[in-house]
Amino acid sequence: MTIFTKIINGEIPCYKIYEDEFVFAFLDINPINLGHTLIVPKIEIDKIYDLDDQHYLAIFKAAQIISKAIEKATDCQRVCTWTEGFEVPHAHYHICPFYSPDGEFWVKRGVPLPKTEMEKIQTSIIEELTII
Amino acid sequence: MTIFTKIINGEIPCYKIYEDEFVFAFLDINPINLGHTLIVPKIEIDKIYDLDDQHYLAIFKAAQIISKAIEKATDCQRVCTWTEGFEVPHAHYHICPFYSPDGEFWVKRGVPLPKTEMEKIQTSIIEELTII
Repeated sequence: MTIFTKIINGEIPCYKIYEDEFVFAFLDINPINLGHTLIVPKIEIDKIYDLDDQHYLAIFKAAQIISKAIEKATDCQRVCTWTEGFEVPHAHYHICPFYSPDGEFWVKRGVPLPKTEMEKIQTSIIEELTII
Repeated sequence: MTIFTKIINGEIPCYKIYEDEFVFAFLDINPINLGHTLIVPKIEIDKIYDLDDQHYLAIFKAAQIISKAIEKATDCQRVCTWTEGFEVPHAHYHICPFYSPDGEFWVKRGVPLPKTEMEKIQTSIIEELTII
């Protein structure tokens, strides 16, 4: 069982952002910037493009509304997204606010942030989601 | 008019990979790795998440089949994807084969490759697309 399935099942705590029939979204525990979110399908498939249509499209539909919510919940310049997936063999889509085109944002290593900050941005993003 | 609209209109030549009613895909002229492809909507919108549903979903549907085609046309470890968009204010989705989790692939600067190599990978990807 992957670490993401354990998070979906509630065996590992997370800062949950969004959930529907096909996907689950939560704050990355080592955010590159505050608000950095992962969207994962509720099935264990390594590569995102190997997902069935329902799970695949559900990820990107969720990504659109979460991107808008993160943009509103932060003062970022834009929200960037990516898949790489070399570390955890369970497809996941990164959604992260960025503040400048510094040319190095993809390699910035995420670091843990205080629980109070994580809870605050979690609440802000969820509030924006309910408005959208 | 953005550089991508000029490419879509044929005013600037490109190595075309795919086209449908809503999106257009072509090889990045400065590929990070050979096969690096951009998918753009046929309307000029800066941020990908601000697109209407039809264009937005068309990008990711195309991305799925193009990712599979690139994976088959190369011997890559996996195909990675991303949006950042700080440079051209016309939404575009990067699809690129990667060969190792070197931790620095996002900041590798793409460089032009010989026309023969570009044409060869263009043909290979298109062949795989027709099979899918």
